[in-house]
Amino acid sequence: MRGAARTAAVAATEAAVATDPVDVRWDGMLVNARLATLVGDAGYGVIEDGALGWRDGVLVFAGPRTDLPSLPHALASDVVDAQGDWITPGLIDCHTHIVFGGDRAGEFEQRLQGASYEEIARAGGGIVSTVRATRTASEDELLAQSLPRARALRDDGVTTLEIKSGYGLDLENERKMLRVARRIGEALDITVRTTFLGAHALPPEYAGRADDYIAAVCEWLPVLHAEGLVDAVDAFCERIGFTAAQTQRVFESAHSLGLPVKLHADQLSDGGGAALVAGFGGLSADHVEYTSEAGVAAMKQAGSVAVLLPGAFHVLRETTLPPLDAFRTHGVPMAVATDCNPGTSPLQSLRLAMSLACTHFRLTPEDALRGATVHAAQALGMSDRGRLVAGQRADFVRWRIGQPAQLAYWLGGDLLSGVYAGGRAITTDR
Amino acid sequence: MRGAARTAAVAATEAAVATDPVDVRWDGMLVNARLATLVGDAGYGVIEDGALGWRDGVLVFAGPRTDLPSLPHALASDVVDAQGDWITPGLIDCHTHIVFGGDRAGEFEQRLQGASYEEIARAGGGIVSTVRATRTASEDELLAQSLPRARALRDDGVTTLEIKSGYGLDLENERKMLRVARRIGEALDITVRTTFLGAHALPPEYAGRADDYIAAVCEWLPVLHAEGLVDAVDAFCERIGFTAAQTQRVFESAHSLGLPVKLHADQLSDGGGAALVAGFGGLSADHVEYTSEAGVAAMKQAGSVAVLLPGAFHVLRETTLPPLDAFRTHGVPMAVATDCNPGTSPLQSLRLAMSLACTHFRLTPEDALRGATVHAAQALGMSDRGRLVAGQRADFVRWRIGQPAQLAYWLGGDLLSGVYAGGRAITTDR
Ligand SMILES: [Zn+2]
Ligand SMILES: [Zn+2]
Repeated sequence: MRGAARTAAVAATEAAVATDPVDVRWDGMLVNARLATLVGDAGYGVIEDGALGWRDGVLVFAGPRTDLPSLPHALASDVVDAQGDWITPGLIDCHTHIVFGGDRAGEFEQRLQGASYEEIARAGGGIVSTVRATRTASEDELLAQSLPRARALRDDGVTTLEIKSGYGLDLENERKMLRVARRIGEALDITVRTTFLGAHALPPEYAGRADDYIAAVCEWLPVLHAEGLVDAVDAFCERIGFTAAQTQRVFESAHSLGLPVKLHADQLSDGGGAALVAGFGGLSADHVEYTSEAGVAAMKQAGSVAVLLPGAFHVLRETTLPPLDAFRTHGVPMAVATDCNPGTSPLQSLRLAMSLACTHFRLTPEDALRGATVHAAQALGMSDRGRLVAGQRADFVRWRIGQPAQLAYWLGGDLLSGVYAGGRAITTDR
Repeated sequence: MRGAARTAAVAATEAAVATDPVDVRWDGMLVNARLATLVGDAGYGVIEDGALGWRDGVLVFAGPRTDLPSLPHALASDVVDAQGDWITPGLIDCHTHIVFGGDRAGEFEQRLQGASYEEIARAGGGIVSTVRATRTASEDELLAQSLPRARALRDDGVTTLEIKSGYGLDLENERKMLRVARRIGEALDITVRTTFLGAHALPPEYAGRADDYIAAVCEWLPVLHAEGLVDAVDAFCERIGFTAAQTQRVFESAHSLGLPVKLHADQLSDGGGAALVAGFGGLSADHVEYTSEAGVAAMKQAGSVAVLLPGAFHVLRETTLPPLDAFRTHGVPMAVATDCNPGTSPLQSLRLAMSLACTHFRLTPEDALRGATVHAAQALGMSDRGRLVAGQRADFVRWRIGQPAQLAYWLGGDLLSGVYAGGRAITTDR
């Protein structure tokens, strides 16, 4: 049946192309697909027997095949037959710490063998060990260690990837991390957005001098920004992180440079983080398990996205859910991300994050997909992607599935038949 | 560094092989590896700078490279340089329902949209829908639908796969399922063990006549066994399944044919299932969340394995843990399996099951690996696999990891560099 459909679809296209004047030619076209466009505020935006067309990396058509313009559009050789696959927008992982040295599997093992967090910290474990391994690695080594993780994300559908610094904790090593992040984008043909997270943790050399450290962070930011390494600024505002006042200083530095902000907010307690970042017009408040109703209202006011991170919730076996009903009532968009990091969320699949969001947070599969596309784009301040509609970037994924809900339903598995970024196939079609 | 190590290791081998008399030649050899042999009752059985040698599909050497016999062993062309990778025994998934028609993603979605189990059942959902889709599919269609799932398991390290029938629920369709299971083994170059699970659910045409259905199941069993389609026999003993008396009749049929038994036991309530299957000298009791101490003692007595299925526990958001302490105290071996099935455990990665077993059941990564190798082999009654030691089948996996704990630590990701079954590479080395 797939074979027959291919022939008909390609034949129709070939006929249309026969008289193609070069100046209206598209660079590529995809037919015989079922589209989950995510256009509109609810539903998958399904188009059966759909087609996509693109030019210069941007979609010029996304709709029913029967609505294709009558003018010729693409060379037959540039027509992809999707063989009935479902097509979604490229997935967007809007919160990761994927660049780091070493790993913390040993610590994971010790905890399950009964060691306390304190014992592990005394033995040099915890984030300090990641900082040490990240500082020790050369830029090339750090890239070599991080690239397979980013590739795993891409090969499960991610075309836009946010990557935070925050394990270097000095100028030189924060720069190294951000450079590696940029190189990952080049190596994998995906879009990488970098976030400067100097205010992630207090490095050992600043013990007892958090305010001095924040002053240093605020000095590094313009330097790194001038080098083109910073797309946004983040901080870890928590009893075990930085205070609201310290976070505010970092945000003021960001604002003076015109950089958007986001925040690790209210993960372990309600520190008013969501309202704080909303006060700066922040792109997003992330984690937000303990955010109050007032915080949610402030986010709505500011247009900030709630980024849900079910990986850490799962691994830490948390029980306090984010205020999902309040987000829904207030109309705060919810994104879903992997939070890929070695300590609390060793998660290398955004689809798996979607599944965990459904199981732990009771998101619907549609919520989860919207959270990994439309709302994730918004959390990165990107309006050029996240939906399948003319004018958006031609980032899309072909899935061998019978319905979109399968993306969040399956745990693991290989559902993908191809990833396209800017209209180019960036994985081997399977 | 990898390159240099390769040269040294291969050079040493070439020297040894130079005077190789044909009659002591091995079929293949692997050097420059770190072995997790799982030999012994505790620990990974680590061998640094290890080597493997095999002949006729069976390991003839597994130990430190420096202990390699001085006689020549393999042609240089048959020596694999593992480049420092970790090697584990091939993973063994000892409990799956991976052959089925359709999927239940729609039902998963409806539940998350607020539909009750009753509403879904009234709309024709639940296991009945899987039975319908499985019966409707031709043998080739059923293979085409099931093969990608089995391939995903294999490509994450599984070399031995148990597959149950139980969605056909009549002679013809149970046969079709078991034939598809056998064909999966041939198509993927892995070992498949089939389990007849006719007593999985009551088909609609037997509504109200469970005893009659069990009588039919007991008639089908010798027929399917005579066709070489049955390696073991299973049943679903539960308030919503079959009674202990009905299960017993199925087990008596199995025993009269010399077939080993196993049981879906005590998943939702303590129905005495573990003791029942132990009374028949069963290979395993599976699920066992509600098994009593007496049941555990009976399992110990009988040598039955406890097969833990954390996928269903996760998806159903269960809170009652299996009696892990009792299993440990009594010395009942614990296996870990995916339970891959469309309703309660849509899980296509045994590594992910290992991770869920650590997070939900607090197994250590070593428990989890042992549960997916040594103990899983025992749950299938197979003594020829599960460890890396001379005499065992040459089924092993190369992993790009720094320590064995990473196998259960990462959620998702691509850690694999090659899968070998009977000494042959069955996946493309990456
Ligand atoms: Zn984070
Ligand atoms: Zn089962």
